[in-house]
Parts: sequence; structure tokens; C-alpha cells
Amino acid sequence: MPKSPYQQLEQEFRRLHAFRGAASVLRWDAVVMMPRGSADVRGEQLAALDSECHVLLTSPKLSRLLERAEANQSQLEDWQRANLWEMRRERDHAIATPVSLVTRLARATALAEVRWAEARQENSFELFAPHLEEVVALTRDKAQVLSKALGLSPYDALIDGFSPGFLSEDIDQLFRVVSRRLPSLIRESIELQAERPPLPLDGKVSTAKQRALAIDVMRALGFPFHRGRLDESDHPFTEGVPGDVRITTRFDARDPFGGLMGALHETGQAMYDLGLPEAWRDQPVGRDRGMALEESQSLLLEMVIGRSRAFLAWLRPLLDKHYGVTGPAWEVENLYRALIRVRRGAIRVEADELTYPVHIVLRYELEKKILDGSLPIRELPEAWKEGIESRLGLRPASDAEGCLQDAHWAVGSFGYFPSYALGSFIAAQLYEALRRDQPTLDEDIAAGRFSGLFDWLREHVHGLGASVGSQELISRATGRTLSANPWLRYAEYKYLEDVTR
Amino acid sequence: MPKSPYQQLEQEFRRLHAFRGAASVLRWDAVVMMPRGSADVRGEQLAALDSECHVLLTSPKLSRLLERAEANQSQLEDWQRANLWEMRRERDHAIATPVSLVTRLARATALAEVRWAEARQENSFELFAPHLEEVVALTRDKAQVLSKALGLSPYDALIDGFSPGFLSEDIDQLFRVVSRRLPSLIRESIELQAERPPLPLDGKVSTAKQRALAIDVMRALGFPFHRGRLDESDHPFTEGVPGDVRITTRFDARDPFGGLMGALHETGQAMYDLGLPEAWRDQPVGRDRGMALEESQSLLLEMVIGRSRAFLAWLRPLLDKHYGVTGPAWEVENLYRALIRVRRGAIRVEADELTYPVHIVLRYELEKKILDGSLPIRELPEAWKEGIESRLGLRPASDAEGCLQDAHWAVGSFGYFPSYALGSFIAAQLYEALRRDQPTLDEDIAAGRFSGLFDWLREHVHGLGASVGSQELISRATGRTLSANPWLRYAEYKYLEDVTR
Repeated sequence: MPKSPYQQLEQEFRRLHAFRGAASVLRWDAVVMMPRGSADVRGEQLAALDSECHVLLTSPKLSRLLERAEANQSQLEDWQRANLWEMRRERDHAIATPVSLVTRLARATALAEVRWAEARQENSFELFAPHLEEVVALTRDKAQVLSKALGLSPYDALIDGFSPGFLSEDIDQLFRVVSRRLPSLIRESIELQAERPPLPLDGKVSTAKQRALAIDVMRALGFPFHRGRLDESDHPFTEGVPGDVRITTRFDARDPFGGLMGALHETGQAMYDLGLPEAWRDQPVGRDRGMALEESQSLLLEMVIGRSRAFLAWLRPLLDKHYGVTGPAWEVENLYRALIRVRRGAIRVEADELTYPVHIVLRYELEKKILDGSLPIRELPEAWKEGIESRLGLRPASDAEGCLQDAHWAVGSFGYFPSYALGSFIAAQLYEALRRDQPTLDEDIAAGRFSGLFDWLREHVHGLGASVGSQELISRATGRTLSANPWLRYAEYKYLEDVTR
Repeated sequence: MPKSPYQQLEQEFRRLHAFRGAASVLRWDAVVMMPRGSADVRGEQLAALDSECHVLLTSPKLSRLLERAEANQSQLEDWQRANLWEMRRERDHAIATPVSLVTRLARATALAEVRWAEARQENSFELFAPHLEEVVALTRDKAQVLSKALGLSPYDALIDGFSPGFLSEDIDQLFRVVSRRLPSLIRESIELQAERPPLPLDGKVSTAKQRALAIDVMRALGFPFHRGRLDESDHPFTEGVPGDVRITTRFDARDPFGGLMGALHETGQAMYDLGLPEAWRDQPVGRDRGMALEESQSLLLEMVIGRSRAFLAWLRPLLDKHYGVTGPAWEVENLYRALIRVRRGAIRVEADELTYPVHIVLRYELEKKILDGSLPIRELPEAWKEGIESRLGLRPASDAEGCLQDAHWAVGSFGYFPSYALGSFIAAQLYEALRRDQPTLDEDIAAGRFSGLFDWLREHVHGLGASVGSQELISRATGRTLSANPWLRYAEYKYLEDVTR
């Protein structure tokens, strides 16, 4: 029997999945294993795979198959219709941007990233500015063509490439609510914490011991080491495919928890990937539901669970086993206080749970102004410093600690930053629902029983893949539309009420 | 200016090179890094890349471009004409075998390899026989279609897939010459060595120390660790591309030299890859000249150089440094005798330099008879045992130590075995020419000066890529056509004359 158009589409996207999986392992290898001098060769391999995926997604054959399959949707099962929808989405994204623009953006961002790194090193925004100008100009063009193809505003069309289903209108509203309360929340929390500061966690812990602890913790959480790896890199990341997940973290002997927290963050995303529906795993509907949802899983594990008394109570004996540490500084209550310390600072990646959204809101506002032209690039450094000063009461000492600290804009990732904050809000809303459904969650975690947590996440998040939209997924899982209130409630309890109880 | 057909071909083969390089790193990863349970996912990725390469090579577009470029060869430079010739060769190989046959062979060999491993484990040829029958039947079909396409005999067409430029007629002649002298050479050598047996190299050397030594040795030989890696695997191999070469070896604490010799073997191939012409590196003419030449580079370094007094004299201080060993057993002369010990045995991969060709000649004769049908599969076990017994005077204790010891036939690699022996003969002939051109070679090696050796190999072998045929490469490098006499002279000197001098 000849294959139906829909079946032929599945076959095409299976190939796409294989190429992307191959590319992902090669990116992992490039950071973790590859000899330093081989970047040129790897660049050619990845470019060939990327361009193959682009050719496949934009081929006339695929367009014809999509049209024919869409004309016969009634014969499809629900998940197949959802799959077809995601196929269409991918193809519309790919075909909207002309190859000439893709190529110019690839060249401009490759150069801009190098110049950005030099500029940050030398604290010289002038070195970077002309390259950022070019990336912005090309990104505007991209946003325009995507906007037409997707029927979204230009900026929303960029967001759609990272976190589909979120509009800047919704984000504005969420950020407004949070920003109203955040300054006082941060101030009060810092004052309260100052009354009972944690004892310092002195002494070094070898990276070998930290690694052994992280592996034990990941194993207890259910990370399948026969289907994944933990390695080390300067910046933690997750690559691979659901059957072969590769996460990294960074261990530092002077920081006994940084490496573990990085591993928890990536394990959150890995568990999402591993919990995606096995039957759809090589199809678009079997993928995760975008960056905001991914980030929510990372933050739920690293920030909400990982920095809780229950988790630290379970962790305590493992610290004995691996670190062999004793004394009052290593008691659960002190560890907890040390790990939820709130501090105002200029650097996003060093920020705590409360000040982190401040950094995101600033970037969100600035990137919208950069894109609509109301903020000229030459004014960015001062706008950044002012933004941090007015929000956190400190002025970045330099552009390296200001607008040059992140690579996102250099590589053209406009529309990405909001995902981080959305991830926090989603995590808090899921956590509220999870606690409602599982009243013994804290006891379970303290006893090392993590299966209830992940069963719930698999049922309500992981196992759905991309079969429903982001907002609907959240509504179904939590019984309400996404709001910033659960996060505010969570933050107020954790950082104010619980401290004074 | 529009690209010429030839320039378009270069572009197509550049993509092919990128895909193959990606696949090679993924194969390396599958053995060295991949989690045990992820083979299914990796299989899909490699199959997608393989099939992409096949589609590219057999596309009507490529055929048209080849025809148009071949019609205008006069406008091309010499290396471009050689490149065009290699492109045509690759395309003829790929297009000769129908996709249905490729698929059936892939399935049959995948199953046969699994059954072969079980059969060897359980020492039961019956388990394997029907699968070998099927692989042989399909390989005969493949040999037939290749034969027509390439204008070679069926068996020669198979050899051409591994070591182009060598015909079974030539191999028959080489093997006849060697086989006449080999039995007495082996006997006399064993008798002579028995008069002064080496002291045993007792005691364990940790694999960490062995690894450190191997890395020091590779560095001294010029292996560029910024462009390559050394890792460990059960069976040593080389993967990657010239800009990113990945070799492996196996260290065993009870065998202080096995891991080093494995590393030398693979380093020989790696130095070939790394010495290929940089300007042609993503084109067919920039590849190595086939398995026999590759093997010659491995054996030259492992057997000829690595097991020489000069090399061991240079190595001696490094053994002090890394192994910290002393005593008469660890003196150069004793090490040399231990490392060139000749022993008759049933297993090919454990064979020494002198008995190794015996194993190859037997396999070569048997696989020709299997393919032309004069040896029924059910008679293979006995024919194998008789073949070993009549040649080496010992009878394999079982089929596991007989015809089940190698995976080559299970995976359909008929025509591969002769490359091993050809590699020995080529290595000896190159070595003779090298010593003629560089009279101080021994002193240089003893002093750790390896650049003369590799300069010569780069000039006469590595740097030519695939721009000339195998036989012509050998003739140009050594001043004469390939013959077994240099190898016989080398063997007689090393194993008979030198011992009694």
C-alpha cells in the first residue's frame, strides 16, 4: 500500500530528527571532547547538517505533502493532527526567512560573537557596537518576514521561535505585576536575612567528590545513566536526544554547591526530555514545548526543590558520605540559609531567585526598544547602567559588567530573555498545583522519594510533548491560566513569612 | 560568474565530506563515550547520514555534472583531473549496487554479526552458518553488479572497495612468493630465538602510567593533540577527519607494551590522515589511498620502527620516567627480543610479524573459494582447521579459535583481508627506500629525531592523497613495482641474520 501524504511527512521529519540529533551530539562533543584546534572542521559539519535540515523543511515536496495531508485531516488521530500542526509551524518558520538572509545572519552573528568576547575582555563597547548594529538590522528584517508569515507582531514572531504561545502582551502584564512588588520584596528579604546571616561554608571540596555527589543525586532523582551522561564545561548545558541525553555542569573546589545546583538545573531539563512521549519521539509533536517550559523544569528542580529544607534534609547524609563535612555550618538550616541568600548584583548569571527577574525585565524592555529603533545602539550602555541602578540601587562598574555581560544579542537571540522569567513563573504555578495534588510532597522529598514528583510532571507536562499549546498545557496542569501570583506567593512565603515564623 | 560543472561537483563532494566526517565522530562517540543504552538512537542517526551520502552520490544531478565536467577535462589542472577520476569512481561504486540490495545486505549483516558473536561465544558454527550463507549470497550479487560497472572480475571488484589498484592476480603472485619461503623462515626463527629466550617482563604497570607513556611517545612522534585525541576501547581504531583525528588503544596492566603498540599502530594511520594534502582535504583526491596503504603506515610504525633496537633505545629513558622499572629484563636488548618473539598460534590478532601473513593467505584462499562456490559453507570449519594445521603445524582447538574468530565475513567484508598482508609488504618496501634515502635513520630514531621519517612519508605517501594509483604511488616512492622481496629481505635480516651476528 502506498504511503499517505501524512505518513510520508512522518518519514521526512524522522530524517530531520536524526540530523538534528546528530548535530546535537556534535555540539556536545565540540564543547566537552573536541581537540581545541578542530573548530573549523566541526563548523563545516554542523553547517552541512543545518543546511540539510533547512533544505528538507523548505522543499516544494514538503509543501505539497503538507497541503495534501491538511486537506485530509479528518482521517487522522488527534495526536497526528497536533503533529501536522507542529510540522506546519516548523515549515512556516523555515520558509519565511530567505536563504540569503539566513546566510547573512549566520555570518554577522559569527563575527559579532567573536567581537563581543573581545569587547567584554577589553571593556570596550565601541568594538562591539557596529557588529551589534548589523545583527539588529538583520534581525529586524527577519522579524518582519516572520511577522508576515506567522501573523504575529515582529517581536512576537521572534519570541515564537523560542517559546511558542507567549505574546509580549501577556509578558508585559506578568512583568508589570511582578515589578510592582519586587523592589520591596527584595529589600525586606535582604533585611530579614541580615538578622540571621548564615555561617560561611569554609574549606575546599575537591571536584572529584563534588562530581560523585552530583552523580549520586542524579541517580536518586531517576536520571538514567545508561541513556545519558554528566560531563563538565564552563557553562552548564543540555544536549543530545531523549534516548541519549548529555548534560554538563561546572565544579569549583571553592564552591561546594555550585556544581550540584548546575547539575540539578540541567537534570530538570533532561528529565523533561526523557519523559517526552516515547511513541512520538522522532516527530515534532514529541518535542518539548519550548524554552519557557524547559526553563520551568530546570528552575523547579534547581531553585524550588533543590533549595528547599526537605531536599537538604535528604541531602545531608550524602554530604557526610561524599564531603565528610561536619560542624554547625553544615547543618540543614544553615545550608538552607546559605543557598537562598538574596544579594543585589550586576551580573545575571550570578543572581539569586529574587533578583533574577529584575535582570530579565530590564533586558526585555531594552531589546524591544532596540528592535523598534527607539533606543539607538550608542545609548545602550548608559540605558543599561541606569536600568540596573534604578531597579537594584547599584551601578555596574563597567560595560563588561553591564550590557556586554551576555552573548544573547551578539548571536541574534532577540526574544529569548523573557523565557527565563516565564520559566520561574511557570515553575511556581506548577509547584503550587503539585503541592495541592500531593500533600506529602515535602515528606516524600525529605525521604528521597522523588517518583511522585516526576510522575506528576510526566502526567501533566513531560508526557504531552508538543501536543498542546504552552498556555493550554499550563491551564490543564494547574487549573488556571499563567499568572505571576503563584510566583509572588511562593517568593513571599519563602523569603519573608517562613523566615520570621 | 556561474560555477562550472567541476566547481559544482567540488561543492557536492564538500557536503559529502562533511556528512562522512560527522558520521565518523559519531561512530567514535558510540564506542568511546555513548551511554550503553543509546545504540538505537545512534543507529538511526548513522543510517540517516549514510543514506544521505548514498542519495547524494547516486543523484541524476551528480551524473549530469560528472559527464559535463569530464567533457571539459582539458580546462582542469592535474589534481582536478585526478579528483574528477576519484569522484567518478565513488559514484560508480555507489550507483552499481541497487538500493534494494544495499538494504538487504545491511539487514543481513546486522543480524549475521549478532549471530556470529553468539556462535563464537558458544563455539557453535551451526548458529552462524545460515546467516553466513545469506551474506555470501548477497555479496555474490553485489560482486556481480560491481564487476559489470567497474570492468573487474567479481572478486577484484570487492577488493577495489577497500584497496583500489590491487588485483587478485598480483596478490596471488605476492602470496606465492612469500608462502614458499615462510614455513622455513618461521621454523628457523623460532629455533634461533629458543637459543636465547628473553627474560620475562614480570609485574604489573598501571594503565594510567601506560597511558602517560603512550601520550609522551605520540607527542614525540608529532601527533598534534590540539587536532586529535587518544582514548581507550576494546579494539583499537582510528576515526575522525584529518583536522580532528581520534585514535584508541587498549591498556592492560599485565601487558606493559600492548597498549603502546596499539597506539603506535593507530598513530601510523593518524599521521597518514594528518599528512594528507590540506588544500584538497574535503575532496575525494585528498583522501588516503585505501586500506592497504593505511595498513602499511600502521605496520611501519608499530612493527618496523616500534619494534626496532633504535626505537627501544630512545624509549628506554621514558620507561624509567613513566614505569620506573629496572633490572636486566628491562634492558634494550631483552625488550627487543621480547617484542619480536615469534610464536605459532591459532589467533590472527595475537600473531607476530612472521606468522601473521600465514593467517591472511589462508583467509584469502578460503574467501575466494566461498565466493566462487567451490567451498560449501558447511565445509568451512574443517577447511579452516586443515589450513592452519598444514601451514603452522597446530590444529585450532575449536571453531571459536578457528573460522569464528573474525567478524569480517559476518559484516560482509569480503576482499578486505588481503589488505593486511599487502600493508606489510608495502611497509617493508617503503622502509627499504627510506633507509636508502636516509642513511642515518637508525641514529635519528635512537635520538628521538622522527621528523626525517615523517618528512619522507609526507613527501612520498601522505602528501599525495589519492592523486595517483596505489601501485604508481609505491613505484614512485621506492623506484620499483610492489614485490614481496623487500619484506622477505627485511624478515630474513631481522629474524635470522641479525640474531646470529
